[in-house]
Amino acid sequence: MEFSKRILDMQFSPIRKLAPFAEEAKANGKKVYPLNIGQPDIETPENFFEAVYSYKEKVLKYAGSQGINELIESFIKYYKEWGINFDKDEIMITNGGSEAIIFAIMAICDFGDEILVPEPFYTNYNGFTESAGAKVVPFITKAEDGFHLPPKEEIIKKISPRTKAILISNPGNPTGVVYTYNEMRMLASIAKDYNLYLISDEVYREFVYDDLKYTSALYMEDILDRVILIDSISKRYSACGARIGLVASKNKQLIHQILKLCQSRLCVPTLEQVAAANLINTPKEYFKKVKAEYENRRNILFESLSSIPGVLCKKPTGAFYMVVKLPVEDSEDFAKWLLTDFSYENKTVMVAPAEGFYATPGLGTDEVRISYCLNSDDLKDAMDIIAKALKEYSKKQQN
Amino acid sequence: MEFSKRILDMQFSPIRKLAPFAEEAKANGKKVYPLNIGQPDIETPENFFEAVYSYKEKVLKYAGSQGINELIESFIKYYKEWGINFDKDEIMITNGGSEAIIFAIMAICDFGDEILVPEPFYTNYNGFTESAGAKVVPFITKAEDGFHLPPKEEIIKKISPRTKAILISNPGNPTGVVYTYNEMRMLASIAKDYNLYLISDEVYREFVYDDLKYTSALYMEDILDRVILIDSISKRYSACGARIGLVASKNKQLIHQILKLCQSRLCVPTLEQVAAANLINTPKEYFKKVKAEYENRRNILFESLSSIPGVLCKKPTGAFYMVVKLPVEDSEDFAKWLLTDFSYENKTVMVAPAEGFYATPGLGTDEVRISYCLNSDDLKDAMDIIAKALKEYSKKQQN
Repeated sequence: MEFSKRILDMQFSPIRKLAPFAEEAKANGKKVYPLNIGQPDIETPENFFEAVYSYKEKVLKYAGSQGINELIESFIKYYKEWGINFDKDEIMITNGGSEAIIFAIMAICDFGDEILVPEPFYTNYNGFTESAGAKVVPFITKAEDGFHLPPKEEIIKKISPRTKAILISNPGNPTGVVYTYNEMRMLASIAKDYNLYLISDEVYREFVYDDLKYTSALYMEDILDRVILIDSISKRYSACGARIGLVASKNKQLIHQILKLCQSRLCVPTLEQVAAANLINTPKEYFKKVKAEYENRRNILFESLSSIPGVLCKKPTGAFYMVVKLPVEDSEDFAKWLLTDFSYENKTVMVAPAEGFYATPGLGTDEVRISYCLNSDDLKDAMDIIAKALKEYSKKQQN
Repeated sequence: MEFSKRILDMQFSPIRKLAPFAEEAKANGKKVYPLNIGQPDIETPENFFEAVYSYKEKVLKYAGSQGINELIESFIKYYKEWGINFDKDEIMITNGGSEAIIFAIMAICDFGDEILVPEPFYTNYNGFTESAGAKVVPFITKAEDGFHLPPKEEIIKKISPRTKAILISNPGNPTGVVYTYNEMRMLASIAKDYNLYLISDEVYREFVYDDLKYTSALYMEDILDRVILIDSISKRYSACGARIGLVASKNKQLIHQILKLCQSRLCVPTLEQVAAANLINTPKEYFKKVKAEYENRRNILFESLSSIPGVLCKKPTGAFYMVVKLPVEDSEDFAKWLLTDFSYENKTVMVAPAEGFYATPGLGTDEVRISYCLNSDDLKDAMDIIAKALKEYSKKQQN
């Protein structure tokens, strides 16, 4: 039996692809530090579970396709605190940020259309785009530049008549970059000049360090009809398993069209929505504490990595990832070797080879994405292990 | 700003499209019996909520992309009771049956490919197929035949080189039809002769009445490599809001490919999976009671409707819907009028105009889908209201 070309062209998750080797390492009694996945160790606010435990309906019914009122209202309130005003008919609740992105792409792309994305990019952007029959067209950003945007002309030359949107993650996964006001304005001017949408994935909005000023795409009043916001509670509230996200836009017509996609999958889980709606009551302290924690980890990670000979990285300013150049030729081989052949005091680490975050063949082959979703002590330990592993791996390579 | 042709071609849910009028009727103090939507009033088994209340993790983490082990194992156990044997690598947990269908279509269809579907069909089959860039090609089944399948040649003549699969709902939504062994064998032989998949949506498997024998597509050993099962706990356990479903096949390669789609959306909500896994411990009595309840409602509905002059319906034998021909020219106008202009003792009913369940233009314009998710007393009352409404509507039409 044949499969579609679409699915054959898709790749397995590069973040999850080494999982079987990690399982085997664990089965063999090794401790494996998971630096590959953006699964925070931070506790989900109690408000979430309180709402879960006090859910007393006898029938677990469908919710409306747009999402439950309480949840939409809670998001409206949340955005107000960021100086962003949404009306109720400008938001659709989705199954995580993932569904928000695929709905956005489906709403603006037909088969063969293109989406411009700075690479390296969140690997699933590829999956979403391909499953919608569209295509990611990358423009390169570099480790040496801290993954900031290239000059305007580098971006413009990638635009074709099939280009429908620029898709960014800001703060960036996997790079940790936070785009400056000027970078955002450059994207806005390109979007206007070439009649493109700007899809802005802002799920890491709360994680901007060094007191940097954050520029949401929604702050750019002159392009609000072409901004599509992707958001999610997964990282903000350490509630990845809830799968609650949203797609929003001041372009009400667009959101109205997306309602068709929402209706076709009926609704987002009811109970998760009820619980997520209660997150708005999370004390402000929670965010401060969590942000300080991540900032501290970022510092530890950056200092440890910078001190390893041959490792190249710029200090990231947001999210909880960084992409690092390692003194290896094939980072996937290194990542696999870490799990299958290496251990130090019976411990090892799992990282995500960065090649899967690039669309351009051959890029990222000496890079890995490291997430800092581990507590400081574990993170220090993990960095020691990487330093030792790189030394041993290099010796092995020379033999 | 432009939208994709894909999304412009999609329709809003015909099941949910009259919702604003129903809201208005309710706001005006009218009681509205919801016969439009398949939202059962039956209580969700307590096991589900017990598992929810006893969830004690502090961090709501991502689950694996395939689904959690306990849930997959619980489904394997469930299918065994139906004489169907699945291995663990033959099942992917999905966000309801909805996601299962769209994943199945994406895995086998490229842009422009076709799926054969008996019409009337579950309206979202259209949405799933269109959003995947493929096309539903209908073959007609008729109210007078109780919506059983037409002769083989009627189906075959719809097959083109782009046809990839036959998609059925069995027991049928919206028709309540249960296909006989011979009908299923006919589909199997077509699938073999024309190298097609058979996508079998069996979410209403538990709801087969009159002691009929049910033939799952999985019972046909000679085509197991081409059968894709769609399933969901929504109806079986009256847990629509949980959004837990699955796509399964004995074709392990296909399921392995679908893992890519699962990975791209990361996972299905963790908490809902944990709770759903506990449903396997639902006492057998629950199903017996629920089935008896629906069978009784089906009888009430059929008898009431049959006694209304000009109404044509055959007794359905499964699920909890029926498609009924009414003595009206435009059932959508009638359905809308019920909400905006009619009431009896300040009550009215909401039905789903059937046109949206057909792909062939002009079909179903005098039909509605009625679901029997109301208790017997309400159902009787609702049928009285429909009888009275039809009389008044007919008078109005003559004026």
